[in-house]
Amino acid sequence: MARDGFKVFDSDMHVLEPVDLWERYIDPAFKDRAPRGTARKATDVGVTVDGQDAFTLSAQIARVSFQGGLERFAEDIARGFDATAQLRAMDREGVDVTVLYPSRGLFVNSFPDMDPAFSEAIARAYNDWLADFCRVGDPRRMYGAAMLPIQDVGASIREARRAVGELGFKAVFLRPNPPRPRVYWNDLVFDPLWAAMQELGVPVGFHEGVASHLPTVGADRFAPDQFALLHACSHSMEQMLAVEAMTLGGVLDRFPRLKVAFLEGNGS
Amino acid sequence: MARDGFKVFDSDMHVLEPVDLWERYIDPAFKDRAPRGTARKATDVGVTVDGQDAFTLSAQIARVSFQGGLERFAEDIARGFDATAQLRAMDREGVDVTVLYPSRGLFVNSFPDMDPAFSEAIARAYNDWLADFCRVGDPRRMYGAAMLPIQDVGASIREARRAVGELGFKAVFLRPNPPRPRVYWNDLVFDPLWAAMQELGVPVGFHEGVASHLPTVGADRFAPDQFALLHACSHSMEQMLAVEAMTLGGVLDRFPRLKVAFLEGNGS
Repeated sequence: MARDGFKVFDSDMHVLEPVDLWERYIDPAFKDRAPRGTARKATDVGVTVDGQDAFTLSAQIARVSFQGGLERFAEDIARGFDATAQLRAMDREGVDVTVLYPSRGLFVNSFPDMDPAFSEAIARAYNDWLADFCRVGDPRRMYGAAMLPIQDVGASIREARRAVGELGFKAVFLRPNPPRPRVYWNDLVFDPLWAAMQELGVPVGFHEGVASHLPTVGADRFAPDQFALLHACSHSMEQMLAVEAMTLGGVLDRFPRLKVAFLEGNGS
Repeated sequence: MARDGFKVFDSDMHVLEPVDLWERYIDPAFKDRAPRGTARKATDVGVTVDGQDAFTLSAQIARVSFQGGLERFAEDIARGFDATAQLRAMDREGVDVTVLYPSRGLFVNSFPDMDPAFSEAIARAYNDWLADFCRVGDPRRMYGAAMLPIQDVGASIREARRAVGELGFKAVFLRPNPPRPRVYWNDLVFDPLWAAMQELGVPVGFHEGVASHLPTVGADRFAPDQFALLHACSHSMEQMLAVEAMTLGGVLDRFPRLKVAFLEGNGS
């Protein structure tokens, strides 16, 4: 599929996780609390955790994601957006190699107060599922960005090491939003994570999702039904703030070999 | 002072208000509650209202504002930054005409829960003082941007009409921050203000100040002592959000002859 001798690389393609991913993959100790994808309509990309919507605007984002009509996606929907459907989409778009980011997974453990052990179990389940997904699809063309638990830095490091060392992931992702109010990525508490990522030698990709339960630019002034207003500022400015934390905040001074990526900033 | 046939116009020059401005100018009904400028050191630009600091980072901003040392400003300090000192500064900088924005006045009535009548009295006092300041200085070279109370739209309109109609102001200013949590400038509640400003035919200048008691980008993630981090994102992104509210939020569609300015966005 190379064009003019160049291969086409998509640094930010998304999977759409099956609704029962966590029921199937989560540690049995957490099986009765497994997050569950919602399927209120064909385009529903929501997920509930302990009975609470993790993604507060999933109906709005689905309307945008599926624009052009469901007919376009009929076969993908029938396949449940499986690895074969993903590969077909790559072929249609002329993409050789991708790094895969989540849909429901951007929200599923993005709760400031979530029990760190539960959050880690959710991340492990997602990463195990995504490793299988890439293996079934085409492991030379599909690379997952691993989910980390964000509530405890020790757990973040443990899952990053496991995802890279055992599952062979080439990237991890984090939300740019503060994991907890008044605790941001330039806080010294995260330095052990940056040290580990620098040592592992794989990049950290920041990816925003709008309307999780994390602090988000715009949520203090635009109403929940003003999706365009919220999306326009959250995707752009959450990335700017993450850039600010990693640069002016000193992280890249302290860890000069750390690699970071800022994705879907709406600057295209 | 014109250069090559052009006059130099500064759309955003600041005054430094005397500490006793409000004691001298406020409606006698509010005299016992008059805000008071703080003077903990020579460079103090703070102000207290009802015993509370209105400007939570005044020491940090003063350090930046007076960089280069107090000797540079010795004569201005001796004159109390009066209208003559302001004119001398304009002459030194080669500026012909200015619109004047406040220092302490960016904060003095920027409290979401302030009694609207008190806020209006504070704005009236500032505007009366600033009208005198421009008159004493040079009314052909100095134009004030009027302060509005933000807690009640009827009061905002009343003071805008008074400042333009009676005092001859050519601009008003607002902070870009939400006046109250979850109430932003594109909210229909402010449409009567935009209608009045369109009718008056003078621009609304949005000017951020960082570290007031209003919601502010970055305050949910950077610590109060991280002044550079807070300032860099508040001044730029509060302006972006105000642009978003006035454009995508529909205000300039509804009031196509309304003029707005976005100042000190740190994009220079």
